[in-house]
Amino acid sequence: VSLIEDIVERLKRGDPVALGRLLKELENETMAGYVALKAFEAARPKGLAHVVGITGPPGAGKSTLVGILCKTWAEQGRTLGIICVDPTSPFTGGAILGDRIRMQELAKQPNVFIKSLATRGTLGGIASSTADIVRAFDSFGVDIVVIETVGVGQVEFDILDTADTVVLVNVPGLGDKLQTFKAGIMEIADLYVINQADRPGADESVKDLQQMIHDMETKLWSPPVLKTIATEKKGIKELAEQIERHKQAMQQSDVWGEKRKIRNHKRLRQRIMSLFAAEVDGLIKLDAGVAELVDKVKAGDHDPFTAADRIMEAVRRQMLQRQG
Amino acid sequence: VSLIEDIVERLKRGDPVALGRLLKELENETMAGYVALKAFEAARPKGLAHVVGITGPPGAGKSTLVGILCKTWAEQGRTLGIICVDPTSPFTGGAILGDRIRMQELAKQPNVFIKSLATRGTLGGIASSTADIVRAFDSFGVDIVVIETVGVGQVEFDILDTADTVVLVNVPGLGDKLQTFKAGIMEIADLYVINQADRPGADESVKDLQQMIHDMETKLWSPPVLKTIATEKKGIKELAEQIERHKQAMQQSDVWGEKRKIRNHKRLRQRIMSLFAAEVDGLIKLDAGVAELVDKVKAGDHDPFTAADRIMEAVRRQMLQRQG
Repeated sequence: VSLIEDIVERLKRGDPVALGRLLKELENETMAGYVALKAFEAARPKGLAHVVGITGPPGAGKSTLVGILCKTWAEQGRTLGIICVDPTSPFTGGAILGDRIRMQELAKQPNVFIKSLATRGTLGGIASSTADIVRAFDSFGVDIVVIETVGVGQVEFDILDTADTVVLVNVPGLGDKLQTFKAGIMEIADLYVINQADRPGADESVKDLQQMIHDMETKLWSPPVLKTIATEKKGIKELAEQIERHKQAMQQSDVWGEKRKIRNHKRLRQRIMSLFAAEVDGLIKLDAGVAELVDKVKAGDHDPFTAADRIMEAVRRQMLQRQG
Repeated sequence: VSLIEDIVERLKRGDPVALGRLLKELENETMAGYVALKAFEAARPKGLAHVVGITGPPGAGKSTLVGILCKTWAEQGRTLGIICVDPTSPFTGGAILGDRIRMQELAKQPNVFIKSLATRGTLGGIASSTADIVRAFDSFGVDIVVIETVGVGQVEFDILDTADTVVLVNVPGLGDKLQTFKAGIMEIADLYVINQADRPGADESVKDLQQMIHDMETKLWSPPVLKTIATEKKGIKELAEQIERHKQAMQQSDVWGEKRKIRNHKRLRQRIMSLFAAEVDGLIKLDAGVAELVDKVKAGDHDPFTAADRIMEAVRRQMLQRQG
C-alpha cells in the first residue's frame, strides 16, 4: 500500500491526523495532495457542506464572533471545518488572549477541524488552496465549512466567491464609512452583523444598512441585519438561525447548485493554470534562448508583450517535441 | 495614421487625455492598450519613477495623509501618477467629504495624474493592470508613482511588491494588534507612520514599533517610525524627506535595479498567463468534447485534476494543428 493510498484509507475512516496531513499537502499545492484528494473525493458524497464566509474589517470583533458562533454550532453537534485566511486571526496566533484560549478549546473538540492559511503567498495561491481545502472538508463529511477572512477591500472576492453564505461583520458608527462598503464587499454579503451592538450608534448603523439593502436589487433573499455582542454571547443563536435560513432559501432555488458549479469550475481553472505555469518554468530551465529573453525583459531591454508571444511559441515547440 | 499610433504620438507630446485613454485600456487589459504601451515604452527612458506604496487599515487616516503628501510633492514641482487600489479611497468617491475635495483639487493640477482601479475584478487582474499602469506613468515621465492600497491582509502583497518604497500607516494604541502585523505586512514596510499622533498612546506605539524593527533583521535600511497628524499637515515634510532618503539608499545599492527587474519579470509572467488563459477559453469554445468535460467538472461528475490534464492535452493538440 502506498503512502497516499494509506492516507486515503485513513481519511475514509475519519482519521483527523490524516485530514491534517491532507490539508497541509493541499496548502503546499503538492502532487501528493492532489492525488490523495482526487481519490478521496471520488469516493465521497459531494457538495453537502454549507460553506459560510465571515468577513469584516479588523477591530470589528470578528474573530471573537467566529469563535463563539463555532462553539455554538459544535455544541449543537455540528461537524465544523474552519479555514482562516487572516493574519489577525486567533487561529494563526495573532490575536487577543481571550480569543486564543477560546479557539484552543474549540480545536480540542472532536467535531471541529481548523486549518489556518497563514502563508505569505500570493492571493492566487491562497484562493487555490482554499477551494481544494473546502472540498477536502466536504469529503471528510463536515456539516459547515467556515472561512474567516479580513474583507475590507475587493481583493478577497476570489476567496469569498467560493462561499455559499457571506456574513459581513461590522461595528456601530459606520457613518460615512457606509459609502466605502458600497464600492465593494457590500453587495456580496448575505447577512450583515453589527457587532459590539452595546456601543452608541448601533441602531443607526442597523437602520443605515437596512436602507442600503432596501436600495439594492434583491431577488432570492433580502439580507437581514443582525445585532450581536460577541463578548457577551448575545445574538449568536439568531445569527446561526439566519445562516441556516439562508441555506434553506438557496436549496429551494438554483443558487445552491449554481454555487457548487462555480466552485468546481474554479478548481479546474486553477489547476490548468498551475500546470501551464509549470510548463513555462520547465521551458525557462531547459531553453537557454528563452532564459536569455527573460533576462532581457527583466533588465528592461525587451518589452514583455513581444517576449510573451515568443515564449508562447517556444512552449508550443516544447509541446510539439514531446508529442513527436 | 492608426488610432494607436495617434495615441502614442500624443503620449510622447505629454498629452494627459491620451494618458487617460491608455490607462483605461490597460485597466481593461485590451490588446490596443498593450500595443500602445509597447510602442510608447520602447521610445522612453525606463524605470526612472520612484514607486511608493502607501498602505494601512481603514480608519488610519491613510487617504487624508496620501492627499496631503501628494499635495506637498505637487507644490514642490514633482510630477505624480497616483494609482488607487482601494474602494475606501477618496479617488474612487467613497470617503469623507474633506478628502474628496482635496483630491479633486489635486486632480486639477497639471502635474498630477490619478488612476483609480475600482473594478470588482480579481486581485490577479488588478495586480496585472497595476504593473502596466506603473510602467505607463513611468514612460510618461512622472517623478513619483503613488500606489494607495488597504493593506490589512497578506492579499495585497502582489500589488505592493511592485513598489520601491512601502509606507505602512497606522494609528496610536496598537497594543495587542502589533502582534497581528508581525504575521504579514509588517516585514515589507520601509517606513512606519503613526498618524493621528495627537491621540493618546502615540509615543508608546512608536516605541513598540521601534522595538519590533530592532528585533527584525535589517541590512540596507533600518525603517524609521514617523509621527504625523495629517489633518493638521504635521509631519508631512519629514515623511517626504524619509521617502526620498529611502530612494537614495536603494540607488546606492543593488536594490533599486533589483526592484525594477522584479517588476519587469512580473509583467512578463502576467502577460504569458493571460495569453494562455485566452488559449484555453478558445479551446472550450471550439471543442465540444472539452466543453462537455468542463460541464462535467462543474456538475461535480468529474474530478478537476484528471480533467485539467486532459484539457492540457487538448491545448497541445490545438497548438499542433495550428502549427501544421
